[in-house]
Amino acid sequence: MFNRIANIIHECQLQGENLLVVGVSGGPDSLFLLHALNFLGYHMVAVHVNHGLRSEADEESEQVKQFADDLVVDLITTRVDVISYASKVSISIEEAARVLRYRSLFEQAKICGASAVVVGHNADDQVETILMHLLRGSGLVGLRGMGFFTLPNPWSVEIPLVRPLLSTWRAEIQKYLDDHHIKAIYDTSNQDISFFRNKLRHELIPTLEQYNPSIRQVLARMSLILKDDYSILEELTDKAWESILIKEGSGYLAFQTEEFLQLPISIQRYFLRKAITHHLPGLRDVDFNCIERGLTLLIGEKPDSQTDLIAGLRLVKKGTQFWITTWQADLQAGEYPAIMIDEKIELQIPSTHLLNNDWQFEVEESRNPTMDNFLREGNWDPFQAWLDRNSLVFPLIIRVRSTGDKIEPLGLNGHSIKISDLMINLKLPKPARATWPIVCSGSEIVWVPGYRICERARIIAGTSEVIHMRLHRYRTT
Amino acid sequence: MFNRIANIIHECQLQGENLLVVGVSGGPDSLFLLHALNFLGYHMVAVHVNHGLRSEADEESEQVKQFADDLVVDLITTRVDVISYASKVSISIEEAARVLRYRSLFEQAKICGASAVVVGHNADDQVETILMHLLRGSGLVGLRGMGFFTLPNPWSVEIPLVRPLLSTWRAEIQKYLDDHHIKAIYDTSNQDISFFRNKLRHELIPTLEQYNPSIRQVLARMSLILKDDYSILEELTDKAWESILIKEGSGYLAFQTEEFLQLPISIQRYFLRKAITHHLPGLRDVDFNCIERGLTLLIGEKPDSQTDLIAGLRLVKKGTQFWITTWQADLQAGEYPAIMIDEKIELQIPSTHLLNNDWQFEVEESRNPTMDNFLREGNWDPFQAWLDRNSLVFPLIIRVRSTGDKIEPLGLNGHSIKISDLMINLKLPKPARATWPIVCSGSEIVWVPGYRICERARIIAGTSEVIHMRLHRYRTT
Repeated sequence: MFNRIANIIHECQLQGENLLVVGVSGGPDSLFLLHALNFLGYHMVAVHVNHGLRSEADEESEQVKQFADDLVVDLITTRVDVISYASKVSISIEEAARVLRYRSLFEQAKICGASAVVVGHNADDQVETILMHLLRGSGLVGLRGMGFFTLPNPWSVEIPLVRPLLSTWRAEIQKYLDDHHIKAIYDTSNQDISFFRNKLRHELIPTLEQYNPSIRQVLARMSLILKDDYSILEELTDKAWESILIKEGSGYLAFQTEEFLQLPISIQRYFLRKAITHHLPGLRDVDFNCIERGLTLLIGEKPDSQTDLIAGLRLVKKGTQFWITTWQADLQAGEYPAIMIDEKIELQIPSTHLLNNDWQFEVEESRNPTMDNFLREGNWDPFQAWLDRNSLVFPLIIRVRSTGDKIEPLGLNGHSIKISDLMINLKLPKPARATWPIVCSGSEIVWVPGYRICERARIIAGTSEVIHMRLHRYRTT
Repeated sequence: MFNRIANIIHECQLQGENLLVVGVSGGPDSLFLLHALNFLGYHMVAVHVNHGLRSEADEESEQVKQFADDLVVDLITTRVDVISYASKVSISIEEAARVLRYRSLFEQAKICGASAVVVGHNADDQVETILMHLLRGSGLVGLRGMGFFTLPNPWSVEIPLVRPLLSTWRAEIQKYLDDHHIKAIYDTSNQDISFFRNKLRHELIPTLEQYNPSIRQVLARMSLILKDDYSILEELTDKAWESILIKEGSGYLAFQTEEFLQLPISIQRYFLRKAITHHLPGLRDVDFNCIERGLTLLIGEKPDSQTDLIAGLRLVKKGTQFWITTWQADLQAGEYPAIMIDEKIELQIPSTHLLNNDWQFEVEESRNPTMDNFLREGNWDPFQAWLDRNSLVFPLIIRVRSTGDKIEPLGLNGHSIKISDLMINLKLPKPARATWPIVCSGSEIVWVPGYRICERARIIAGTSEVIHMRLHRYRTT
């Protein structure tokens, strides 16, 4: 088992003399990882991130300190303020904890001059990840699962993220710990894993095992093969990228359209995906439809045109070039979505409304919730919203912000913040704030387009009817 | 809906003036296909294959005749003898019906000078196929599902197999038939679909829909993307094939080892797969392990060596070349597996026995049935067998054939045939017959290695303990 782990690290070009930063929560996976790396003689520093979320957090930090001391491994404990970060950038506690944890690990790796950050995802985590991707339909990129070696990653372009336990099963890890009387910390609240992943682990995988008792092994093996397949397509994409890229700058990329259109369709798709993750390296899932929207525009006859891609990115076709830009880079003052200060637009459902500066607002009812909010653990396109119809008061109204407006944004467990603070925190351009359209349901703000929906109106397991809204720019030129 | 169908046919380079042979069972899919193609104005001949398996068969042929007459479409009805073909080549009734049906369609297409054979697989069939492949772990080749256009296919290298309904859902087809008061034939016994596929359709897919209500659409879309991805890898493989192939002949292919080893690992895998399906175009599933066995041998240091791949194919490394050969092409008289005429080998479990001519017989107990027999609807490696322990009488014994020996081979519903006839039908080389090893359980023959297991000893849903046997050749030279 240790051999398997050593082989993976070796294939990542890491030697005994390289310093590794090892993320240690104290749970079974990371504790086993620490033991394995120690046994194999790697040079390492353990980093424990205290999220301060649970009452046991400080006590657990002490335990982790003891684990490290027992193995004579250096330990750095960092402390992060998940609640206030989640509140500041308005993301869920779970997501905020993840972001801050990785950020801490990579910061420490930089300070220590480490060659890699090593974390303890195991083969069962991998299988669950693959199935989550399969259920979302994310193609080869998702089906190959997590990487053994990831560089660049959302936290660094120099320090790789390494996962040496991806071929080691949870049961093997547990057996090793039991055999050696090593007692890990078990987080009974399981805050680190989502409802969806839990259901997958405890219900879907056992069901699939009725069809093939080796399904976990089969999927793990599949991911290895698909990784190799993907790396060929990735290499072809990188090669095309180099020859087609004209220029890049803060928030924009420019390419040659005609050369792009000569690529095979598969590479065209990976190319657009690469451009999107170039702007948004933290994006966890690139929606398939946005790739197709982009391709449709590029293949289309219309010479100068544009389309929204995802998360505020847009694709603009201009002359012989096409640009992929963030909306902030793309929009000048006077081009932001806007309504009149005293305007109140009552939304019929379905309906379409023209706002100022060539923006269009669409609202419709959807009887088939896509469950995207569950599947993706967050909707990545801030210019679209899916809300639970039963949580809303009709008619919905679009208006500008008003003094004292508050929102309870998704992910803050009902904690509310002022709209004016939200706009500042999220860097909504100052000239746009006073006329930015906001969607209200009764006295409550349910959506700030481009930014956040409110927690209470989100889609939940019992949601049967869904209101879908979309704000997008059209230009006649 | 008809537009979608027309687009697919158009992308297959088929025009209105091309003659299409359309397979029509009279079921909803094929009947809808006939209506759709007729509506779209294609030039076609309907071919109905009467399997003669059910009492209603002749009556149904009459109904199909009426369907064709109503649309003023020419109909050819052919008759095949499924039972005796299944018995002759010793395959299951289901598989024999499939083989004879396609063979008939392609024969008629050749006679009529048709440009394609068109069949009615729909989008739901596609999703089920993809899931079956996923459960088996068959990688990109399986995950892309059935092709819209397949050439070469197991039945022709000139006439493509076209499936224009792959983007049309079962419910859409049924709605069309209902709306137009068209009454299809419903085979209540559902002989055409396997137990495994049925379970998938009625249990697994509804379960997956709880995780993502759009799972069917998601998987269908995924298959389209993966098809494009795969076609790039396929093209790279074909290019490599041309430059590395030294010679080919009946039952053998020879390649340059060093050039092969310089290919990316992904292409090496597809290359070996291509070599295998070159010899066995009807092989429905190439086992992952056999590809890895081949690669391990080729990458290994050992200069002259060989390994079994699958279904009697072997890979032989010799000097600067490697060969992929059928065992019939590879073996000379005097190299067949053999035991002494009067020998009786009692099999301990587990144990390994050396037979004559450098063959080795292995038997072991397996507590985790792989369910391969279910998943693949047949084990494609005739030199391995998996049997239900509870159906066997111990000790198992290896001996040569004896006068009057019979076997009830898998797939013939308990129908028994003489071992001497089996050997002739399956073309076991004459000089090998008298000393060929046969596995007996009490008075019953349970395995003729290289050929068939007996029906009664097969793995079934309730199998808990499995006996696995393998016969393979080792050479010390």
